[in-house]
Amino acid sequence: MINTLFLPELREMLAVGNAQELREFCTALHPSRAAEFMEGLANEEAWSVLQHADTHQRAEIFSYFEYDRQVAMLQAEDDRQVADLVTHIPADDAVDLLSELPDKRVEQILALVPAPDRRDIRRLQTFEEGTAGSIMTTEAACLDEKLTVRQALETLSRQAERLETIYYIYVVDDTNHLRGVVSTRMLVSSFGKPDRTIADLMDTDILTVDASDDQQEVARIVAKYDLLAIPVVDAQRHMLGIITHDDVMDVFMEEATEDVQRIAAVEPLEDSYMRTPILTLTWKRGMWLGILFFAGILTALALRSYELEFEQFGWLVWFIPLVIGSGGNSGAQTSTLIIAGMATGDVKISNWAQIVTREVATGALLGIFLATLSLAPALMLAPSVLAALIVPLTIFLVVLCGTFSGSILPLVSQRLGWDPAMMSNPFVAGLNDITGIVIYVNIAKVFLR
Amino acid sequence: MINTLFLPELREMLAVGNAQELREFCTALHPSRAAEFMEGLANEEAWSVLQHADTHQRAEIFSYFEYDRQVAMLQAEDDRQVADLVTHIPADDAVDLLSELPDKRVEQILALVPAPDRRDIRRLQTFEEGTAGSIMTTEAACLDEKLTVRQALETLSRQAERLETIYYIYVVDDTNHLRGVVSTRMLVSSFGKPDRTIADLMDTDILTVDASDDQQEVARIVAKYDLLAIPVVDAQRHMLGIITHDDVMDVFMEEATEDVQRIAAVEPLEDSYMRTPILTLTWKRGMWLGILFFAGILTALALRSYELEFEQFGWLVWFIPLVIGSGGNSGAQTSTLIIAGMATGDVKISNWAQIVTREVATGALLGIFLATLSLAPALMLAPSVLAALIVPLTIFLVVLCGTFSGSILPLVSQRLGWDPAMMSNPFVAGLNDITGIVIYVNIAKVFLR
Repeated sequence: MINTLFLPELREMLAVGNAQELREFCTALHPSRAAEFMEGLANEEAWSVLQHADTHQRAEIFSYFEYDRQVAMLQAEDDRQVADLVTHIPADDAVDLLSELPDKRVEQILALVPAPDRRDIRRLQTFEEGTAGSIMTTEAACLDEKLTVRQALETLSRQAERLETIYYIYVVDDTNHLRGVVSTRMLVSSFGKPDRTIADLMDTDILTVDASDDQQEVARIVAKYDLLAIPVVDAQRHMLGIITHDDVMDVFMEEATEDVQRIAAVEPLEDSYMRTPILTLTWKRGMWLGILFFAGILTALALRSYELEFEQFGWLVWFIPLVIGSGGNSGAQTSTLIIAGMATGDVKISNWAQIVTREVATGALLGIFLATLSLAPALMLAPSVLAALIVPLTIFLVVLCGTFSGSILPLVSQRLGWDPAMMSNPFVAGLNDITGIVIYVNIAKVFLR
Repeated sequence: MINTLFLPELREMLAVGNAQELREFCTALHPSRAAEFMEGLANEEAWSVLQHADTHQRAEIFSYFEYDRQVAMLQAEDDRQVADLVTHIPADDAVDLLSELPDKRVEQILALVPAPDRRDIRRLQTFEEGTAGSIMTTEAACLDEKLTVRQALETLSRQAERLETIYYIYVVDDTNHLRGVVSTRMLVSSFGKPDRTIADLMDTDILTVDASDDQQEVARIVAKYDLLAIPVVDAQRHMLGIITHDDVMDVFMEEATEDVQRIAAVEPLEDSYMRTPILTLTWKRGMWLGILFFAGILTALALRSYELEFEQFGWLVWFIPLVIGSGGNSGAQTSTLIIAGMATGDVKISNWAQIVTREVATGALLGIFLATLSLAPALMLAPSVLAALIVPLTIFLVVLCGTFSGSILPLVSQRLGWDPAMMSNPFVAGLNDITGIVIYVNIAKVFLR
């Protein structure tokens, strides 16, 4: 829903060039609200309004625009204005946005960015996607341990506007080595003792991550310890930047979405579903459907090799979807539960024996349940009581195979260093289709001989 | 992995009752580390160690124990000690833990908790699970707007230890109406102007949620605006509590896991996978497998009604798994993408026409792709070229039906107020099995007449 409340007024102010009122609009409202009210404006109009805000407000409001709109604005607008904006948004966001522009344009823009900010951006550009380095921001509050509480608060009060977060203050020495951390909570608690030094307050037992660490691992640490931010260091413990709680939340949402897509046999989309072009969507889904299709062909060949049996006992055909469906569904349940458990850290590969045992036990119970359910329809459709027993017996074994392979495949895949989510429904289902048919026909052969 | 580094020393200290060293252990380490080192101790031992920490540290260390261990300790230990602990942990956590104990025991414990804390706990107990009220904490930093920056910092410095978060300070009047908010960042920025008042600094355009709001909705707002906390108010805008960013992270992980389980046809587990008993697991999975089983029986009946066709053209049987698999897999891809998109807010029901159009277009492309793939095996296995054409044509139509139903079912289900994730794989697959068979046989009839 687009908020149109201020649209006519904003357009009027732009038309007559009422700089004072436009400035007022940008200043008085919370940046998120200002961005919301600008949603109905064309990109050029919104950009013009932004030029009336001061640099910090402009960057703040801009950060609340939709990502696509941000990219479109950087693409369309003047180099100098873009460079000015890029200087004032967090360096990690700047890197993401610049990666959407042609290299030549990026160079033109960066040439207009002040050297220290440009250096930050260049350094962040070197980290691979998915690493801690790629999601960190360089704007951390760093102080010297010799400062007193009062001096620290004074220094912070000057820096506060510029920093993405001031809730942890990092203590570094002259060569930028990380020495410790003081939370703002601790600093505020010591407000009554303004002459204590940062060295007295600081905590030196500090959790850090390496710039090359996997972002998912980082997110898990931040969530486990309920941190607001975690410092990123290099091998020599030089302070490189911090990763803040909101970036961690983004990582979780990204990874959860990726897992779900893999579970459904979709190669993870780089963009949101609605923004992914239909051809890309087709490709990301088609490649996995193609693999599953191959499994389907193998199943067809298995069925053909039992041609005689199916010709002789035509009624066996009716239960084919039921048999392979029971194995596939129970297997998919298992693999999905295990994959989701691995993502939250609940399921660990070291517990593999316990997991497989649990799944086989659950599979046996589910198998008995479904086999019992199948008894009535089998008796109804099969030519004799003895023949009818083929169906429940097959279903019991197929469900057991499903839960067994559904538990073993993600574990093995994790052990081999592959994404366990890949080993989910597609492979489990494909495997179970063929084994299901083999079990079915062989049981039938025994009973109908 | 259990950290055994300090285990012998801890046991030694306990055995000789070395209170000073036990106190030192609890004080010197970060609470999370202290909890880690205690993992190898029996519950009684760990509880004894905790009794040497001061009340705040005890509550902090306790909060890092596994949830099961926390519950077991409350169950086993002395009423008075438990009440003392309950008083010092955040009220929302206390409510969760107490809900695991028998009602009678809870009354005994609460009788020993000081009246203000007891009142907080009782009030939180009244909120339904899944609402904002049930995840909020009552320990928010509240100040009067007449205070100056200096006075505010002094007041905060006294309260800081007690509060769960001090990063937003809420401004309330005498009757506890919420008037505005000041971030600690703003307060620190104004350190140089200590005589400004809170009223000058505060932001009155403040995002709030109602205690009865859905927790998922709250989480989405907090994530959208990158907040550290959001205040919870009643209909008269009385301040009830706050929800902090770490609780929001928990909500996201909980909801993501639930969605994944629903997608795999598992009724959401209340507990983690590893802690869920096998019988519960069997029940939560069996109920959905039972429903899918019913769909399988319907497919069997559909197949029986085409008995003559399959007897006459036995080779048609071989492609049954491939045909229903293609429809099921492409349908599951669609419904999963849409369900995941709804969870992140990317897919909105108001865009239903666009979504269905996209899916039908993607389905057509995927259908053409899979139909092409099927041409060679069909030509190989079918008795004539004309007969072979049945397979690609069926696959094209089945994939199209799959993506269509996969998009329409979650949307309709959302519209009816049901959980769209429920309408995923189970129903989509069941539906597609039957329509797949019907399409297959009817095309075959036309071609083979």
